[in-house]
Amino acid sequence: MLVSAFAAESAKSGFSPYEYELEEVGKDQVDIAVEHCGICHSDLSMLKNDWELTTYPFVGGHEVVGRVVAKGESVSHLQIDQRVGLGWYSGACLTCEYCLSGKHNLCPSAEATIVGRHGGFANYVRSQALWCTPLSENLAFAEAGPLFCGGITVFHPILQNKIKATDHVAVLGIGGLGHLAIQFLNAWGCEVTALSTTAEKEVEARSYGADHFVVCRDPESLKAVENTFDMLLVATNAKLDAELLMSLLKREGTLHIVGAVPEMEVGSFQLIEHQKSITGSPLGSPALVNEMLKFCGRKDIAPATQHFPMSEINEAFEVLKKGGARYRIVLDAENG
Amino acid sequence: MLVSAFAAESAKSGFSPYEYELEEVGKDQVDIAVEHCGICHSDLSMLKNDWELTTYPFVGGHEVVGRVVAKGESVSHLQIDQRVGLGWYSGACLTCEYCLSGKHNLCPSAEATIVGRHGGFANYVRSQALWCTPLSENLAFAEAGPLFCGGITVFHPILQNKIKATDHVAVLGIGGLGHLAIQFLNAWGCEVTALSTTAEKEVEARSYGADHFVVCRDPESLKAVENTFDMLLVATNAKLDAELLMSLLKREGTLHIVGAVPEMEVGSFQLIEHQKSITGSPLGSPALVNEMLKFCGRKDIAPATQHFPMSEINEAFEVLKKGGARYRIVLDAENG
Repeated sequence: MLVSAFAAESAKSGFSPYEYELEEVGKDQVDIAVEHCGICHSDLSMLKNDWELTTYPFVGGHEVVGRVVAKGESVSHLQIDQRVGLGWYSGACLTCEYCLSGKHNLCPSAEATIVGRHGGFANYVRSQALWCTPLSENLAFAEAGPLFCGGITVFHPILQNKIKATDHVAVLGIGGLGHLAIQFLNAWGCEVTALSTTAEKEVEARSYGADHFVVCRDPESLKAVENTFDMLLVATNAKLDAELLMSLLKREGTLHIVGAVPEMEVGSFQLIEHQKSITGSPLGSPALVNEMLKFCGRKDIAPATQHFPMSEINEAFEVLKKGGARYRIVLDAENG
Repeated sequence: MLVSAFAAESAKSGFSPYEYELEEVGKDQVDIAVEHCGICHSDLSMLKNDWELTTYPFVGGHEVVGRVVAKGESVSHLQIDQRVGLGWYSGACLTCEYCLSGKHNLCPSAEATIVGRHGGFANYVRSQALWCTPLSENLAFAEAGPLFCGGITVFHPILQNKIKATDHVAVLGIGGLGHLAIQFLNAWGCEVTALSTTAEKEVEARSYGADHFVVCRDPESLKAVENTFDMLLVATNAKLDAELLMSLLKREGTLHIVGAVPEMEVGSFQLIEHQKSITGSPLGSPALVNEMLKFCGRKDIAPATQHFPMSEINEAFEVLKKGGARYRIVLDAENG
């Protein structure tokens, strides 16, 4: 099958039309006709080869919503024409201890949708069927793409850290991930504090369900919320003052990292004396994605999106680079 | 009551005989006639005022075994002449959310036995009765003191991190804490690896229950145990290469700190991608101490001790300073 994609030839180039051939679909795989594909900050990091994982021509895109157009012979749980979502992962071994435990996102040989293969900035994208989660009718599918990467990234920590409705949780960084985290935590029953360097985001943060908003440009403004949070979710990739952020946690609280922040300096005092912890998590398993989607449908949780036709991918990336996304950009297929 | 203690007059001085007067015992307190008192590395840190918490004259000692000689009117669960143990904490408020939850060791106004008051290098020491745990008959009481600080410090992480018999746990630092950690973990059913800079400790580490012994003087020797441990318990206060140690953890593994290590540099990759964590803990609650003592009795777990008469406290500290304790020094009262 010939795929029409948008690819970057180098770390410095923009995206331009690019065609490539897909061999016959594998036994456990499906091909998806892309209807919508979100742009995540990690598409930009991969474009620039920030993590030294990128191969060029590079086709990004890992927040896919589309319809199954082909499936391998052993795929029984998806039907042709069924609408599914696909995120960061597109393959796992199924036999390692993590896959066998339902934690496919921890599989040491997990395949990422845009690493060493081509992603969803295209008319078609391929994936192991396992990673394609059916979308139910009560989800606005044109907005659902960002749930498959940004959404699951901030949903997982709530489960991992056994967050309860009685907990007070802070979200640092009100962007593509943060605005979803606030919605999840609000729906979870938590008291939610948004921490942002941008005072102008207060109204929107509150509209997503933040009970409190703290401008955290300087350490002083944070003093007032010392010993306050059960979890502080770091949804930014800016450099952190980890000791300062940990001082905002209650005893037994956790600083949970999902943004690729630079190296942090961590002292032992708060870890030991106040039994605090530093945790992190990578997206989520297929089972967890499914659970998240059901929760989103029941609680009316959706990303705030800006749509661009896929042919305007370079304009869309310019908005992302300037920090102008409010809060997640979605590319729409033009010949679905 | 007049107390005959050993006190240091300054950070640089040794201990010398020192007497002080105790007022009448408080309603919820007991006075203990000290029979034995372990020396912990934190007695040395406090002596030197490393943590800027010390007041002089300084009377250390917080691994006490002795008999109740006086009790306040509201103390009903301890009897005169009953043998008890006392550790790092000697008071808590009983009304904060942590005390009310049975986590008295997290009480923000917890009182430490040797901070702002006088400890167990003396013939008598006072404590809130809550922190005095009765010793059962099947424990060798002359050896039990170190359980109340060193022991509970390494027992707590096993519970906190929900360690199971199927887990593989590493203990870094085979000293007063580490040799107890190995015994606990072995009795817990775990596979245990001892990590030490001192090759000569292998035979003893194995005698305490280590299945494996790794000399960790250089990074190369650690390469062989990458992705191996469910928990790596840091029972040293030496400077850590946290990233290197985290690379020895399996996915979802935790680096648990109980030693007052200097500031660490921590990257986000292993936290996020491999869902690893960094945790810590402060001693344990009275309920947990009780649970530990029952476990020690049932599993025949005891510290390896070297005994000195209390009047030889300065000689004992010299052994500790030179790293010569194998593995915990206990001072014995001479006029019990």
